[in-house]
Amino acid sequence: MELVKNDETLDDLQLKGINIIQKKTAFRFGVDAVLLADFAKIKKGMDVIDLCTGGGIVPFLIAGKTEAKNITGVEIQEDMTEMAIRSVVLNRLEDRVKFINGDLKDAKLLKTLPKCDVITVNPPYKLKNSGIINPDDKNAIARHEICCTLEDVIVAAKKLLKDNGKIYMVHRPERLADIFCIMRKHKIEPKRVKMVYPSVKKAPNIVLVEGHKNARAFLKCEEPIYVHNEDGSYTNEIDKIYGRI
Amino acid sequence: MELVKNDETLDDLQLKGINIIQKKTAFRFGVDAVLLADFAKIKKGMDVIDLCTGGGIVPFLIAGKTEAKNITGVEIQEDMTEMAIRSVVLNRLEDRVKFINGDLKDAKLLKTLPKCDVITVNPPYKLKNSGIINPDDKNAIARHEICCTLEDVIVAAKKLLKDNGKIYMVHRPERLADIFCIMRKHKIEPKRVKMVYPSVKKAPNIVLVEGHKNARAFLKCEEPIYVHNEDGSYTNEIDKIYGRI
Repeated sequence: MELVKNDETLDDLQLKGINIIQKKTAFRFGVDAVLLADFAKIKKGMDVIDLCTGGGIVPFLIAGKTEAKNITGVEIQEDMTEMAIRSVVLNRLEDRVKFINGDLKDAKLLKTLPKCDVITVNPPYKLKNSGIINPDDKNAIARHEICCTLEDVIVAAKKLLKDNGKIYMVHRPERLADIFCIMRKHKIEPKRVKMVYPSVKKAPNIVLVEGHKNARAFLKCEEPIYVHNEDGSYTNEIDKIYGRI
Repeated sequence: MELVKNDETLDDLQLKGINIIQKKTAFRFGVDAVLLADFAKIKKGMDVIDLCTGGGIVPFLIAGKTEAKNITGVEIQEDMTEMAIRSVVLNRLEDRVKFINGDLKDAKLLKTLPKCDVITVNPPYKLKNSGIINPDDKNAIARHEICCTLEDVIVAAKKLLKDNGKIYMVHRPERLADIFCIMRKHKIEPKRVKMVYPSVKKAPNIVLVEGHKNARAFLKCEEPIYVHNEDGSYTNEIDKIYGRI
């Protein structure tokens, strides 16, 4: 079986020898996924579900960084799921990582999954009707709320999480009020938030949010992350998160 | 008439010669009020109401920095209001600044005030039952939600604002989810947020939020403010906001 196809690349995560297959032209993982996998607090033996998993970058990062027991990615696009499954085989991670092709709005599908300790999610950022929709469907599905909205994601997370289970989300700061209000509507309490700034003097362009199912209100706002130094180089913090130093 | 009493000080705002009377032992203004007055966008001729005004620091800063037409401070503590009124006389600002002693939960009182373009508010930060209550009542009222809650403030603001009027609030980051959710509940849309960090590597300790009455959702997260350099000195930005450079 040929694991990597002609329109794909094999990319080294520089993390315990893990490689991931990515399409040359479709959505490729970026700093968001790496920050999310670093932000999530995952202890030994935990069960993790990654929603909107795409090619599976977040599950592979978590498999490399943590001692999570089972890591399951859920993806609506069949060919992306099939590609993620080939990455599992390639990395011989069949005992810990699996991928399911399905729609997170499908209540029947969610019932087939065991309740988990942690949900991670890097959902589509943009509202369905905002901005120019990318004519390439795969990118549009990853970037715009075409197949699922923020509320769909939070409703699915609520159903999948154990009581006091935790959701870790990476999103855009302009959706922060939506995230907080929709989480609370579904009894997921925002407990931790971290702003990510491109550099010290710029507006934030990424936000990381941790929510706890059925928890009491108290939000911890943490020290921020800066991606670049003023000279454009990566900060030490980012190099550490990427495992480069 | 003696304008400054024995238990009070007269403090120079270093802003168009304005001085403010403050009690030696009660809540004295800090960086929060100065940041709030800088964050608020107030155009010539606008009517402004400052809730939880205390000794009136925010109205005096706005009087000095902007061409607002009428600036009205509302304060529940009678002696603080009386002190603020003496500061008006002292600065000969009777034509633009006035203070009203009353409770922002008092719907009848709110009806006596004309609708305004802008609300500013530096409300008590802490929940009523959180932490140690300061035995000095004045400080406790300024710091804890004893006389009014965040929701009381937002409900009062909603009643006082013109359609699409704006509220500017300074608060603690741990209340950000509360602020966003309560604003939305009362049809005040969070439109702008700015985190304030003690220094580059620290967690934020102040947040500035702008909400618009009856507006569409879109939140702009702005570049942050840092109060101190790493050597402990004030940043240029803070010196500019204080009018020192």
